[in-house]
Amino acid sequence: MSVPDALDTPAIMIDRLVMERNISRMADALKAKGVGLRPHVKTHKVPEIAAMQLAAGAVGLTVATLGEAEVFAAHGAVDIFIAYPLWIGPREANRLRMLSAGARVSLGADSVEAMEQAGRHLGGFAGELEVLVEIDSGHHRSGVLPQNAARVARAAAAAGFRVIGVFTFPGHSYAPGMPVKAADAEESALRQAVASLTEAGFEVTRVSGGSTPTAALTAGRAGDSVTTEVRPGVYVFGDAQQFELGRCGLEEIALTVAATVVSRHEGEAGTPRRVVLDAGSKILGSDRPAWATGFGRLMDHLDARIVALSEHHATVIWPEDAAVPVLGERLRVIPNHVCLAMNLVDRVAVVSQGELECEWHVAARGQNN
Amino acid sequence: MSVPDALDTPAIMIDRLVMERNISRMADALKAKGVGLRPHVKTHKVPEIAAMQLAAGAVGLTVATLGEAEVFAAHGAVDIFIAYPLWIGPREANRLRMLSAGARVSLGADSVEAMEQAGRHLGGFAGELEVLVEIDSGHHRSGVLPQNAARVARAAAAAGFRVIGVFTFPGHSYAPGMPVKAADAEESALRQAVASLTEAGFEVTRVSGGSTPTAALTAGRAGDSVTTEVRPGVYVFGDAQQFELGRCGLEEIALTVAATVVSRHEGEAGTPRRVVLDAGSKILGSDRPAWATGFGRLMDHLDARIVALSEHHATVIWPEDAAVPVLGERLRVIPNHVCLAMNLVDRVAVVSQGELECEWHVAARGQNN
Repeated sequence: MSVPDALDTPAIMIDRLVMERNISRMADALKAKGVGLRPHVKTHKVPEIAAMQLAAGAVGLTVATLGEAEVFAAHGAVDIFIAYPLWIGPREANRLRMLSAGARVSLGADSVEAMEQAGRHLGGFAGELEVLVEIDSGHHRSGVLPQNAARVARAAAAAGFRVIGVFTFPGHSYAPGMPVKAADAEESALRQAVASLTEAGFEVTRVSGGSTPTAALTAGRAGDSVTTEVRPGVYVFGDAQQFELGRCGLEEIALTVAATVVSRHEGEAGTPRRVVLDAGSKILGSDRPAWATGFGRLMDHLDARIVALSEHHATVIWPEDAAVPVLGERLRVIPNHVCLAMNLVDRVAVVSQGELECEWHVAARGQNN
Repeated sequence: MSVPDALDTPAIMIDRLVMERNISRMADALKAKGVGLRPHVKTHKVPEIAAMQLAAGAVGLTVATLGEAEVFAAHGAVDIFIAYPLWIGPREANRLRMLSAGARVSLGADSVEAMEQAGRHLGGFAGELEVLVEIDSGHHRSGVLPQNAARVARAAAAAGFRVIGVFTFPGHSYAPGMPVKAADAEESALRQAVASLTEAGFEVTRVSGGSTPTAALTAGRAGDSVTTEVRPGVYVFGDAQQFELGRCGLEEIALTVAATVVSRHEGEAGTPRRVVLDAGSKILGSDRPAWATGFGRLMDHLDARIVALSEHHATVIWPEDAAVPVLGERLRVIPNHVCLAMNLVDRVAVVSQGELECEWHVAARGQNN
């Protein structure tokens, strides 16, 4: 697919048909296994896309911040999990009160202290909110070790929350060869945490795992798995990270950044054979894992390498055996991490079979708190 | 300075007094040497800050995109350099016509083809615009080698533009030990380019260089230097990159991200002693040069290391000999690259001596084209 003429570059374009296929493929795979899908909407931040995910059978939405929850609730979401260990002061307590007037709201928890703090500010209202204890399944970010889950659950219950289960984010799945290992660690950590909570007298009804690299693996073992739902986000679009990890094919890439060749260098003594595109870190995002080939990939030129990214320049080294594109040529870049790219624009172009269909507002962009 | 209570984290806070000092220090240093200052406002994207820079004596503003130029022109800027090799189609031509109704506008150029393309779409109007040929002084991004400058200048003149000089961005100055070397290469490349243009019959009135790491060096050699103006951006705020390069001190850091400790881990077998802050890549930006110590620095805890950044989590390894901060504590993070951080928020808090003074709108945020 080429870049529609009407688009000024750089711009994010979403291939609607590819995205719809991604949404139904994940929904169908999980439905077949009886595992719930609670997509993480921080990836796209677009209410229209969330509506499509819910229509395909998602059991609810996952968000990272109170602000995201507020935007999606205002757009009709009625079951929202804030998968984050919020530190709840008086302002956050008020926002939670208002939020839960229209939606079932669940929260993450990973410390006794945060539960005590929340209890102080929420008072009796905590009983309107559900809590899932966050488990560290090997990523070593937030989350408690499975053996400490019951301690946090007791503090949550003491603060008045309804404790309904546990969750984890196997973020160490984002590396080559890691998805299977991370999915195993996730299953084992969640199982141990559930046992610990059950032993402590809690009824566990939600066990939430998953990431885009591991969601299919979790679904694959359904029946044997303790997991009741997963929270993949990136699967709606795919990105260069998922492609390079072997977790999605090119035909599943629904989001690209349209860019123009603004500078071209060939045959200049002592300088690399390269083009410069007008898409830089202010639209692609600058995530670049050590194992990645560069700062994203070019959709129709997989051998080209994005070796450097400035704010408004991508420097692309062109393979020796391919003709360097001409100045003014419009190319499509696959960002390394779509969640960051979506957070950098107010609007995205929706494209179908090469035609511009409409624009969507990235309604929850920048909702950091 | 602590984080004002009224601020919800994560949030960008700007220490007004430190920023004002940075603005006048750079302005005074360059004024003393007779070198013009044309600050790059992509760093802050805030009209109020641009107004302070102009009041301190800046000769004009530098921007990276047409959209940024439009925002600052709408806020009263009358001399704007778009330091970018724009590819000018019919829409860009119309926007340039409207923009230059109220401002003196200069553009970058680095190819014959882009000048021919611009000429086709601008027609006789090109004569209202000034062009500076971009020179590659060793960064190997955009820009032509100095010996090719005259070729591009002739194409610009043939397209009807007024050719007034040359510019370069010594981006290779952003590495330890490089600022002096990059400033030398910059001076030598600009000198060669000026000679080439003069020989080709062009009158060179503007020679534009500089970056925050090299601006002071350029100023230092004024008198001997061919440079007439410099375009530093980051100097208004400073950031962890400049600090780690030795180009600014802690007392010059005017921008920090206020963050809260939301997760804390100590004495958990097999996992690192760490805290997690609620400031992630969606507010700090994820630029992380290979030579950096991590994804930013903590203002009051220079020995702590931000080893990982997710979208809403910063994982900070705490030094063995220091007490790990408590949950709920509010800390200040110095981002690696302030230009990216500013582009992630709609508003910033302006703080003076610990008191919240006002908020500024980041009016040119997201102006990618």
